Amino acid sequence: MRNFSETNITEAVLERIAGATDPRIKQVSEALVRHLHAFVREIRPTQKEWDYGIDFLTRTGHMCDDKRQEFILLSDTLGVSMLVDAINHPVPEGATETTVLGPFFVQAAPEKQNGDDISGSMEGDPMIVTGSVSTVDGKPLPGAVVDVWHSDNDGYYDVQQLDEIGDLAMRARFHTDANGRFHFWSIKPAAYPIPHDGPVGEMLEAQGRHPWRPAHVHFMISAPGFEQLVTHVFVAGDKYLDSDVVFGVKDSLIHDFVHCPAGRAPDGRMVDAAYYHLNYDFGLKRAAGNPQAA
Amino acid sequence: MRNFSETNITEAVLERIAGATDPRIKQVSEALVRHLHAFVREIRPTQKEWDYGIDFLTRTGHMCDDKRQEFILLSDTLGVSMLVDAINHPVPEGATETTVLGPFFVQAAPEKQNGDDISGSMEGDPMIVTGSVSTVDGKPLPGAVVDVWHSDNDGYYDVQQLDEIGDLAMRARFHTDANGRFHFWSIKPAAYPIPHDGPVGEMLEAQGRHPWRPAHVHFMISAPGFEQLVTHVFVAGDKYLDSDVVFGVKDSLIHDFVHCPAGRAPDGRMVDAAYYHLNYDFGLKRAAGNPQAA
Repeated sequence: MRNFSETNITEAVLERIAGATDPRIKQVSEALVRHLHAFVREIRPTQKEWDYGIDFLTRTGHMCDDKRQEFILLSDTLGVSMLVDAINHPVPEGATETTVLGPFFVQAAPEKQNGDDISGSMEGDPMIVTGSVSTVDGKPLPGAVVDVWHSDNDGYYDVQQLDEIGDLAMRARFHTDANGRFHFWSIKPAAYPIPHDGPVGEMLEAQGRHPWRPAHVHFMISAPGFEQLVTHVFVAGDKYLDSDVVFGVKDSLIHDFVHCPAGRAPDGRMVDAAYYHLNYDFGLKRAAGNPQAA
Repeated sequence: MRNFSETNITEAVLERIAGATDPRIKQVSEALVRHLHAFVREIRPTQKEWDYGIDFLTRTGHMCDDKRQEFILLSDTLGVSMLVDAINHPVPEGATETTVLGPFFVQAAPEKQNGDDISGSMEGDPMIVTGSVSTVDGKPLPGAVVDVWHSDNDGYYDVQQLDEIGDLAMRARFHTDANGRFHFWSIKPAAYPIPHDGPVGEMLEAQGRHPWRPAHVHFMISAPGFEQLVTHVFVAGDKYLDSDVVFGVKDSLIHDFVHCPAGRAPDGRMVDAAYYHLNYDFGLKRAAGNPQAA
């Protein structure tokens, strides 16, 4: 096998990988070669454009470290993350819709107690979040693990400013109580541009796109026997709801963050300044192996 | 625009990039989104497989530095580099065929004089390379710039062992003489596996492929008014000619490296050991702007 040309190179590569022993690796490799070659055949890149592509991917990789994941941003901004999410998470009646994980999730978030304030040293409008976790038919799930994370009122996450703030903040792990409920205090998040000082920002600018996401709070909720839920709740009224740079918004995930006057808060605490209140009830889909799977 | 699902996400992303002002960027972006989404729809990756993809690309980026270009290796081993080469270099009668650049080209190769030995401190079977550069109709091209680079007799390039050898070797830039000819001494290159201790090696193993390239000498030849020629000449008889991991072999680029006894060499020099002789005549295609363009 030699003398490869535009007409026979794709078949040649497919023949070469026909010996892959794992059928899934074979299937994915073959599809990758076919679609990648079809893309190249359609755009007919010059050598200089190909060089640019190699350099773009290299710079994207070099931008990745423990605080920044530029390839996730690339997947998010090209709509691939939401496509993978949609493929993996058909949502039955009563289950909360899913959206992208995003690049700011941290595995080891601090464990907190219901009622704790997780804003750390950050300043902003106080916000209380109350919520419940239940099955799709409304049965409360006690002991569910609720990871939350969100931006500050300038739109930055803790991990983007660790040098200044010194510690994780606006990020915690809670457990639902006997009634399947959780609540905590923090500050109201703001809309923000995704990090756009790297290759992804360069792409967005070339494509005539803004880099903004509407304000939201991230939730990742797990309970034994149920599919892990990865989602956000978006602030109703945000100006970027219809142009989220990562295509993450769904109507069911937009909710009022109610502006409340100073006084007795939903958790019984007396507060001396106005605050925002988000209440959201989450429904978890049973996992395939769960005997009660629906 | 919100509530994106498997059926409407691709249209949504295409609409978002419709505002790109540069028509080529718009065209490439749209094709990228369509083909990338089609790939994802076909393979229906699990979230874990998508994570693996992100991690694979990230590690590929992190593997790249000034001595290693893992994304070029990825492009080469998926047949993309040869496809781009084929698209860009239709070869008229009399012009030398092209092949991949590969990851071991260095911009600032040492300038050498015809007849110089470029093997530096490397040991191996002596080799003399003689050649000519001409137009497609055989008119010699004096003053053409001839960049050459090749591996040692263990299959390693200078840049892969700079710490040990201290300086570039088996790599140089020559100029053709008044008759369009050049010649130099070096050592005979060996077949070699491409660097396979990274993500690309992982992919090849999973695909059931070996990482070997048949032995060859790289040439990059430029002359004003002519298209730059990027090619190799392969050693006839090499066992990997039919399974080059980067799909680079063409029959016209396979040539005898003739084994010659000690004695008077083609450049008139007396040599006291057996050596190999490669003679190859290169034909350059006129550039589009050249008034004599053919």
